[in-house]
Amino acid sequence: MKLPKAVRQLTETFERLPGIGPKSAQRLVFYLLHNPDYRIEEFAQRLVALKKETVLCSQCHNVSDHDPCPICDDETRDRSVMCVVEQPLDALAIESSGAFNGLYHVLHGSIAPLNNIGPDQLFLHDLTKRLSGVKELILATNPTMEGEGTALYIREFVQQSSTVATDDLTITRIGHGLPIGADIEYTDGVTLKRALEGRRTA
Amino acid sequence: MKLPKAVRQLTETFERLPGIGPKSAQRLVFYLLHNPDYRIEEFAQRLVALKKETVLCSQCHNVSDHDPCPICDDETRDRSVMCVVEQPLDALAIESSGAFNGLYHVLHGSIAPLNNIGPDQLFLHDLTKRLSGVKELILATNPTMEGEGTALYIREFVQQSSTVATDDLTITRIGHGLPIGADIEYTDGVTLKRALEGRRTA
Repeated sequence: MKLPKAVRQLTETFERLPGIGPKSAQRLVFYLLHNPDYRIEEFAQRLVALKKETVLCSQCHNVSDHDPCPICDDETRDRSVMCVVEQPLDALAIESSGAFNGLYHVLHGSIAPLNNIGPDQLFLHDLTKRLSGVKELILATNPTMEGEGTALYIREFVQQSSTVATDDLTITRIGHGLPIGADIEYTDGVTLKRALEGRRTA
Repeated sequence: MKLPKAVRQLTETFERLPGIGPKSAQRLVFYLLHNPDYRIEEFAQRLVALKKETVLCSQCHNVSDHDPCPICDDETRDRSVMCVVEQPLDALAIESSGAFNGLYHVLHGSIAPLNNIGPDQLFLHDLTKRLSGVKELILATNPTMEGEGTALYIREFVQQSSTVATDDLTITRIGHGLPIGADIEYTDGVTLKRALEGRRTA
């Protein structure tokens, strides 16, 4: 028994999405088969709208409805602090914390030599041009091998840049340590090492 | 920071799919944002095609490219055995086992009073009309409460039907017991009970 072509093709498309295996893809397609037509058409329209109605902000490269994005456009944001993140969702998470009121710079990835992603594949080239007036550059890439490497690279890159007055600029790395709610007993050694290195007077 | 409207709407659509939570939905949308335009358009086209290019077979109610479906249309299939399943994917799984060469009848669900699904919501009304010439009706609904109830209902329904010569028809239930590769130690009591009841001479 061969499944209908339309079913097989859509299953194939769902399978390409991250975290969706062949079985889940099949289940999703059969779920959609039982959906009313207007729901399916809405799904299709929203997919097409995703690309047509979103832009990357020409300043911070975050995804947005408009260029510049609401954050870069917001006069009340502190323009002396800039936070470098790998992905738009990282910026969203930091925004949700309510602990940051500066500007962002979204790289759209991290340097990953194993995946052939070098600095040129990221939105890095114009970072130095954005640094006039910036007093602190917070490197908030992920605490992974790629994220650490990217942070290291950006620090060197900015310090060696001729256009940046590095005397006025502090480059910081987001704090590492125990996440709230964690259990020291079950925390890995590297995190504990970083937590001890990052200790502060209580 | 508000995400662009197109991003929020597509996230909402993905969230409605079974097994996809808010976080995964967001991750999928940002994954798609990095996809080339033609991929997104292909996705949208395939969604629309799903409903436009598939039909339910008017005989067995399985999903198909054509009506009647390839199985109902296949003269080499044994028309004296019919297997009742809940979903098209169940029929597919039985086909893949290679152990069945009869016809199917797909209910598209099971009787679930708690979800307000009664016999009228299933493709049950025309089952008895398909039984002329059928010698064995295999009830292959799931071994769940709903599936067992549905099997019980179908047995009564067929036996009480005036249009079926029940003397010539055997109604069987698919075998229950230990799945291959299972461990008796870790098997639940109900399954073991069924496995003992279903024992055969070795």
